[in-house]
Amino acid sequence: MILSALLTSVGINLGLCFLFFTLYSILRKQPGNAEVYAPRLVAEGKSQQTNDFNLERLLPSAGWVTRAWKLSEAELLSASGLDGVVFMRIFIFSARVFAFAVVVGVFILLPINYMGKQLSLDIFDLPNKSLESFTISNVDDGSNRLWIHFSAVYIFTAVVCYLLYFEYDYISSKRVSYFYSSKPHPHQFTILVRSIPVSSGRSYSETVESFFTEYYPTTYLSHWVVRRASKLQGLIKNADKLRRLVRLKSANPNQERSRRAGFMGLFGHRVDILDHYEKKLEDLEDNVRAEQSSTLGKEVGAAFVSFRTRFAAATAIHMQQGVNPTQWVSEPAPDPEDVYWPFFSASFLKRWISNLVVIVACVLVTVLFLIPVLIVQGLTHLEVLETWFPFLKGLLRIAFVSQVITGYLPSLVLQLFLYLVPSIMIMLSSIQGYSALSQIQKSACIKVLWFTIWNIFFANVLSGTALYRAEIFLEPKKIPAVLAVAVPGQATFFIAYVVTSGWTSTSSELFRLTTLIFNFIKRNICRKFDDEFEVPSVPYHSEIPRILLFGLLGITYFFLAPLILPFLLVYYCLGYLIYRNQLLNVYAPKYETGGKLWPIVHDSMIFSLILMHVIAIGIFGLKKLPLASSLIVPLPILTLVFNSYCRRRFLPMFKSYSVESLLKKDREEQNDPTIASFHDRLATAYHDPALIRAQYSGNSGSINTPLLRTAEADA
Amino acid sequence: MILSALLTSVGINLGLCFLFFTLYSILRKQPGNAEVYAPRLVAEGKSQQTNDFNLERLLPSAGWVTRAWKLSEAELLSASGLDGVVFMRIFIFSARVFAFAVVVGVFILLPINYMGKQLSLDIFDLPNKSLESFTISNVDDGSNRLWIHFSAVYIFTAVVCYLLYFEYDYISSKRVSYFYSSKPHPHQFTILVRSIPVSSGRSYSETVESFFTEYYPTTYLSHWVVRRASKLQGLIKNADKLRRLVRLKSANPNQERSRRAGFMGLFGHRVDILDHYEKKLEDLEDNVRAEQSSTLGKEVGAAFVSFRTRFAAATAIHMQQGVNPTQWVSEPAPDPEDVYWPFFSASFLKRWISNLVVIVACVLVTVLFLIPVLIVQGLTHLEVLETWFPFLKGLLRIAFVSQVITGYLPSLVLQLFLYLVPSIMIMLSSIQGYSALSQIQKSACIKVLWFTIWNIFFANVLSGTALYRAEIFLEPKKIPAVLAVAVPGQATFFIAYVVTSGWTSTSSELFRLTTLIFNFIKRNICRKFDDEFEVPSVPYHSEIPRILLFGLLGITYFFLAPLILPFLLVYYCLGYLIYRNQLLNVYAPKYETGGKLWPIVHDSMIFSLILMHVIAIGIFGLKKLPLASSLIVPLPILTLVFNSYCRRRFLPMFKSYSVESLLKKDREEQNDPTIASFHDRLATAYHDPALIRAQYSGNSGSINTPLLRTAEADA
Repeated sequence: MILSALLTSVGINLGLCFLFFTLYSILRKQPGNAEVYAPRLVAEGKSQQTNDFNLERLLPSAGWVTRAWKLSEAELLSASGLDGVVFMRIFIFSARVFAFAVVVGVFILLPINYMGKQLSLDIFDLPNKSLESFTISNVDDGSNRLWIHFSAVYIFTAVVCYLLYFEYDYISSKRVSYFYSSKPHPHQFTILVRSIPVSSGRSYSETVESFFTEYYPTTYLSHWVVRRASKLQGLIKNADKLRRLVRLKSANPNQERSRRAGFMGLFGHRVDILDHYEKKLEDLEDNVRAEQSSTLGKEVGAAFVSFRTRFAAATAIHMQQGVNPTQWVSEPAPDPEDVYWPFFSASFLKRWISNLVVIVACVLVTVLFLIPVLIVQGLTHLEVLETWFPFLKGLLRIAFVSQVITGYLPSLVLQLFLYLVPSIMIMLSSIQGYSALSQIQKSACIKVLWFTIWNIFFANVLSGTALYRAEIFLEPKKIPAVLAVAVPGQATFFIAYVVTSGWTSTSSELFRLTTLIFNFIKRNICRKFDDEFEVPSVPYHSEIPRILLFGLLGITYFFLAPLILPFLLVYYCLGYLIYRNQLLNVYAPKYETGGKLWPIVHDSMIFSLILMHVIAIGIFGLKKLPLASSLIVPLPILTLVFNSYCRRRFLPMFKSYSVESLLKKDREEQNDPTIASFHDRLATAYHDPALIRAQYSGNSGSINTPLLRTAEADA
Repeated sequence: MILSALLTSVGINLGLCFLFFTLYSILRKQPGNAEVYAPRLVAEGKSQQTNDFNLERLLPSAGWVTRAWKLSEAELLSASGLDGVVFMRIFIFSARVFAFAVVVGVFILLPINYMGKQLSLDIFDLPNKSLESFTISNVDDGSNRLWIHFSAVYIFTAVVCYLLYFEYDYISSKRVSYFYSSKPHPHQFTILVRSIPVSSGRSYSETVESFFTEYYPTTYLSHWVVRRASKLQGLIKNADKLRRLVRLKSANPNQERSRRAGFMGLFGHRVDILDHYEKKLEDLEDNVRAEQSSTLGKEVGAAFVSFRTRFAAATAIHMQQGVNPTQWVSEPAPDPEDVYWPFFSASFLKRWISNLVVIVACVLVTVLFLIPVLIVQGLTHLEVLETWFPFLKGLLRIAFVSQVITGYLPSLVLQLFLYLVPSIMIMLSSIQGYSALSQIQKSACIKVLWFTIWNIFFANVLSGTALYRAEIFLEPKKIPAVLAVAVPGQATFFIAYVVTSGWTSTSSELFRLTTLIFNFIKRNICRKFDDEFEVPSVPYHSEIPRILLFGLLGITYFFLAPLILPFLLVYYCLGYLIYRNQLLNVYAPKYETGGKLWPIVHDSMIFSLILMHVIAIGIFGLKKLPLASSLIVPLPILTLVFNSYCRRRFLPMFKSYSVESLLKKDREEQNDPTIASFHDRLATAYHDPALIRAQYSGNSGSINTPLLRTAEADA
């Protein structure tokens, strides 16, 4: 790629970004789009938009930029919780790292690279200059100038490590102060106990009761045994759907109310649809009631056990309860809204096996992902399409159409497959036996991160089949040399990738194109004006890996091709503004992990540094400077030592709270009169939403469940 | 090696064993050897030997064999603690494994190997048959008979895993019942807190007091801050030596009592030695007192904190105490006799760095061990010796002498170096910052095990330099093929190794040759009759790795060269008898870990199995049976899955006790009247032996330390 081509690409993408910004600033002011661009404000009733038409609505404005910029961290904390703050710290941290990198890279390394003669390119024809001449490949072999690169690697590593330490320290102190300022939450007082042993003649509930009253007589408060409710949940979901349908149909009496009862509504006698659905609903509700009454007896070997104090709950989590460590397995309980109910019935062995299966599946998906992609891409060749769909033959012969298909279809296929990956990883994580949605998301985040690094970074760097790439890592000795040859060769590709994928994806995040289209279809074609819309939460598991991939690119290419750095810095600044705006207007947190995602960011940065060192070892060997190559070797070791220190110093703070913090909170509340009522609420905090209705109806002795009542009120 | 040579070697070593046995059964009855062969009984006052001479003393007898055989496990438990029982379980477990292996190996695999024609050896000349014809190398390439070997590998793995599970289960249940039946021990009620933060204006003792009274108000009992006493310990040791000398000299008044005061007692004016030493002793005692008074103020950031109940102590161990996880680091306290005092003054960072340094040092010692050995062995060549020691020229020219030197000196050098390894590893472990001698021994045991596997198994199997061997493991793909070629080639060497090193070393363990010689020299030449002799404890760190190495040999050669198996079975039976006898008569436990060494044995067995599988993958590839080679691949994976299950199921029980067990013990003692006095004793249980005297003298207000008092009593 030559410099002018890059500049053209930058120009086009800058234009696209400004277009998105302009469109956004206009569209967000249209009242119909409030649910797209400010669902959070709409849900909170803070949306100040009126339906009055005025000229201002059609003019682009930059007020949102200043609002997003001026937002203080305390406001962000109250709006999006600690997770939102930690998410934004990724941008701040990365911007700091690459601000330093830009100074060193662009002002020191870039001129040195440019003045090299290795690639013997004409130095004066700047616009037609290949981008290769800005990379380390252009420095003469064995040149002493490479020692400047060598020092830059050392200094950059030191700076990144310092910033990592500072950031870990900052976030862990935030985490502690967030805990100190938090109100009593049920999950702080509760543990989740799994693998409750079966004792003959006693229900799980009795076993739990007797166990905890025996071993925690003064602190044990209450418990709630989980019940097998997946079938019931399915039934209730169906009933809810049907109920909404009935309400919709009865609200629009002018619509056609009858259709044939037979196949696809085409045959058979005509029936009144409303009557038909109501009858179906009644059947379903009968089923729900039958299932509820039968389910109430089906306990599962897992229970939420609440204690009087946070300290007592933490004690119970950390200690092995029974003599057999596979029984009475205790773990911190998630927030009641965060609980993932379906997987509670699994035994210790089953969860352990499904864990292993998921690991294998995840490795296979990651390593072999490109194989189905390549197959499908093979199917998009013109000849194949022509044989499969002969009627398209005429269309495909048109030059423009064929260009579009051959040019865009393969990359569209790749994008489609990539789009599915976060959902696949969430699916895999959810059968791993986690008890909380946040744990599933965190685990999926790690999976997607590895997937992204492997399939975007390594797949582009190392050509050849997936298995060939995997094989390289079975011969550790060769890795530096292989990477040293392959990585600099892809520098121009990744610069373009940052500009196209990085900048545009961030702007489109602001623009929310798919949501906008869905909303438009819903409102103007389906004419649905549903009051119940869901405020989305940040999809950390798909966003964080993307942001971290750019960090990996920046760190590995820091000394190879410093030209990538300014574009990355722009990306992080853009992202910082846009995501602050989105956190304020669009996303609402569903649950709070207290910043538990940061260790993933830290580990990813350490991995990027080590990768940079490995490439440096290879590059200096290739550039005939073996001394520099050997002198880099201590650097990854020192980095790992630094990482292991950080793990000792900070990681425990992300796993649990200390005795000091727990007792401080407990004692603050000791004389609080509201704590008694909180203890009462604890007893019912962890009731399964599917069963809570049955529970109430059981208590009142009537079968008039809220579900039925709502349906009656609608009718 | 041919069969007859092996049989000769077996004959010679059997003869040696019988010689050792006979000599042992005679020597042990000599009253002067009681301290060598029954130090434990002597120390316990149970030695029934009289000085009367009778004929029976000179006749060999086998009474000790029946006594050792009849010993029940309960008796062993009371005599040697759970560690002794676990140590013996290694023999029982190994004997079971190899009893099964002998049946399969000798009756099924051996005939198949023998009937092969690959090596085209004469089948009828049995005595001159090469041992190679009993190995898998003799089976024809691609023969279907190899599927029998294949099945044997699967079945053997299943049997070993079953026995491992059974044994882990048995020992962990033993561990729990041992805990239930134990008396209250100080270490059960105490935790060791390190990295106590410095607070200005307060001593460590006040900081600890205020911290634990604040956070454990109801359960905290007392604490004892560790003091810097390493200099004091050195002084006291010197004083003790000098005191003994004074006592000795004053007890033998007829010996020369004066010598010259100058260089080596040759020049200067004559002085009375006793006076001289007494004066020196007084000086030393002055020093001790000065050091004691100054040391009392020098507290170190570590303390033993005692609680009222075991449960409270366990809680404090498992929880993170302070907000900063590198401060208030708590760990289980060792037994008071088990405490390793010197390393308490180290800070968190220092211990963490020394840990890293030790790991590097340990890897270097292990990998590069053979280099100094080879250098020294190079020096023992005749020509080198002749140039270094010209006066030996005549002697070295004698054929017999030169044969002995060239034949035995290199192996003697190797043995000498090997003899040093356990001490080196103990030394390395002791600077790793462990607080207990038992932890140091356990850590040294693991180090010696890896050292042994690398330097005995891999060094013999893989020829070439140490670095070449290390390099093989950097290319994991090649490992199976390399091992498949190399391992069977060393089969005959290892069969001979089992017979010579295994059998003879075990018999010499019974015979205790070095101790016998030392004792003889002490009694007959130095004429010392010291009442104070130390009862040795089992050197687990040097014994267990040796026993496990033979297990590794047996498992890896099980299907390659089944001829090794009967010899191993004999070794384990011998070992079983001899070590039971030694545990009964010789070794007394110094401290009790509660069987914590078993996980090392388990892991070593799993490693041996995996190694066998890797070799099998290579062998079946080499033997042109690629299908069998691929079908072995799931086996190591299944073994690792089994191991990971065992780690979940049993390992936590070896790390700490459960709430159930702890509270059961606590409640049993709740109404015990003796527990109050035990609580009182707890307060002083962890006083440093070097300071305990100073403490008393400080309390009584006099400087008359026990040390001085003893010296006065002696005078």
